[in-house]
Amino acid sequence: VLLAELKRIFATQKRGQVVLGVGDDAAVLRAPVGKVVLSVDAAIEGVHFKRPWLTLTQLGARCLHAAASDLAAMGAKPSSCVCHVTLTPGFTSAELRRLALGQARAADEIGCPVVGGNLSRGSELSVVTTVVGSVGKPLARSGARVGDEIWLVGELGAAAAGLRLLELRSGRLAKGSPGGQCVRAWREPKALVTQGLGLASCAHAVIDVSDGLGIDAERLATASAKRLVFDEAELLEALPIALLSLCRQRGWEALPLALEGGEDYALLAAGPRSQRPAWARKVGAVTRGRGAYVSLRNGERRRLGTGYDHFVADGPVTGKR
Amino acid sequence: VLLAELKRIFATQKRGQVVLGVGDDAAVLRAPVGKVVLSVDAAIEGVHFKRPWLTLTQLGARCLHAAASDLAAMGAKPSSCVCHVTLTPGFTSAELRRLALGQARAADEIGCPVVGGNLSRGSELSVVTTVVGSVGKPLARSGARVGDEIWLVGELGAAAAGLRLLELRSGRLAKGSPGGQCVRAWREPKALVTQGLGLASCAHAVIDVSDGLGIDAERLATASAKRLVFDEAELLEALPIALLSLCRQRGWEALPLALEGGEDYALLAAGPRSQRPAWARKVGAVTRGRGAYVSLRNGERRRLGTGYDHFVADGPVTGKR
Repeated sequence: VLLAELKRIFATQKRGQVVLGVGDDAAVLRAPVGKVVLSVDAAIEGVHFKRPWLTLTQLGARCLHAAASDLAAMGAKPSSCVCHVTLTPGFTSAELRRLALGQARAADEIGCPVVGGNLSRGSELSVVTTVVGSVGKPLARSGARVGDEIWLVGELGAAAAGLRLLELRSGRLAKGSPGGQCVRAWREPKALVTQGLGLASCAHAVIDVSDGLGIDAERLATASAKRLVFDEAELLEALPIALLSLCRQRGWEALPLALEGGEDYALLAAGPRSQRPAWARKVGAVTRGRGAYVSLRNGERRRLGTGYDHFVADGPVTGKR
Repeated sequence: VLLAELKRIFATQKRGQVVLGVGDDAAVLRAPVGKVVLSVDAAIEGVHFKRPWLTLTQLGARCLHAAASDLAAMGAKPSSCVCHVTLTPGFTSAELRRLALGQARAADEIGCPVVGGNLSRGSELSVVTTVVGSVGKPLARSGARVGDEIWLVGELGAAAAGLRLLELRSGRLAKGSPGGQCVRAWREPKALVTQGLGLASCAHAVIDVSDGLGIDAERLATASAKRLVFDEAELLEALPIALLSLCRQRGWEALPLALEGGEDYALLAAGPRSQRPAWARKVGAVTRGRGAYVSLRNGERRRLGTGYDHFVADGPVTGKR
């Protein structure tokens, strides 16, 4: 019965590419024009979220946007996805329906129908989403050139501030208030798919900021064998107003939230000045060398930290292999 | 450091289709000839396996074969996969390496390189594998016709018997002994990819037997709007010798193990008698009606049970959406 309902929820989506969706051994899709792009992302209770922090509908939508963000960072177009969900004992079918409705909503927003999935029980709620898409010329992390500008697309730090409020159990926040806006940035991130497609024609390298600007900038720098030097003044200017207002209210520092927060799913790109799109903000420059640094207003240059790392064994192990 | 090693482990694989593998935001593959096929499968500690039951290398390989089996059942050719792994606290990098080596071994066996992944910590070990492949004309579950034979490809019941031995903590079993062979069938299943490709040109409908013959046959019957009637005598004749010997030794009944066991990852197909390949065994017939039945040697006809279901909320919810 539930299965039929999930089928129905996911069958209402635009399915131009879908030959066979939910319900068989595997989904079948028309072959894309260009290359196939593939990425997997997970949200695990107690690690990436706690149940009181967001509704199940928000969780479902959030997982899909987070997974699709990796494709946005390749300049790729997401075309379909499959989801595995681990359900805790006592998880009801009404709850699963809400989760699925959130996935379906995000799938519509992104244009990336859920074509299959898998359910299991387990001791913690988790959602693992694999997104498939297509790309002509993929935007790797490795193409940054000396002399490129560093571009920021999307917002930075608001989600981290929102997460801090949730962790502090700050109670109800008015929807339009700075706190409310920051919480919403954490709960309802959007994959910047259109912007990623736009970067495909002008940027040399892109990464999505999922684990924190510091760690993700370091990854782009390493992959490109270059140095990324952020400009503190430019970064501060790029920060969202809600974040700045909230930080003023609470006496928090905004820049560390922006440097260490990642769950806004902004895009970080390197590209030539002449090609910068209007919606991309310059926040630094690519130079010779290695690593990611921020050049402070007082003239100091500081190496960026490693941001939020979900898993550390012997030395830093990052979320994305 | 670990990340570099995972990259190395997975980079040694045949990568004809891989443009960009482990290490960027997403993997990039050459577009396949034909349609894209996509399926996701999960193995969760305490639900699908217990740590003492198999080595981590076996676990890694098993997850890949189980996931690829869904593509085999579509008559599809797996071409690449991405894996999410949730690691428990204290999971060492040596353990992760063993798991990855198992995945890489299976990836080689199947011809389906691991092109990306995701790591997270969590309270239970789990591996979620998404396999992508290609197919010309997909073999759905829905094509069975009245008058078709039911074909079994691969073995049935040995894995269930092996699992029972593991659950009973039967201690060391000699490798070649019936018990040892059955345990191995559970620990080291193989996706029947070649056979699936072979069925693509002759069968009308196929499903892989992952949750139990009863439940999977019922799914094929429902999707095809037909009745599947298995022949007890033919089923018994198709059972593996190791299973029969073990059952004789232990005083177990073999048929229920074959009907309810599913983790051999055999293929169940419906097709015309004249087209049956030499390696497919006839075990029944497709008739008008609904549901899956077994016709017993004493003339009775019994409805097949629902097999092993990982998740039951209100009414049966199946692993595969």
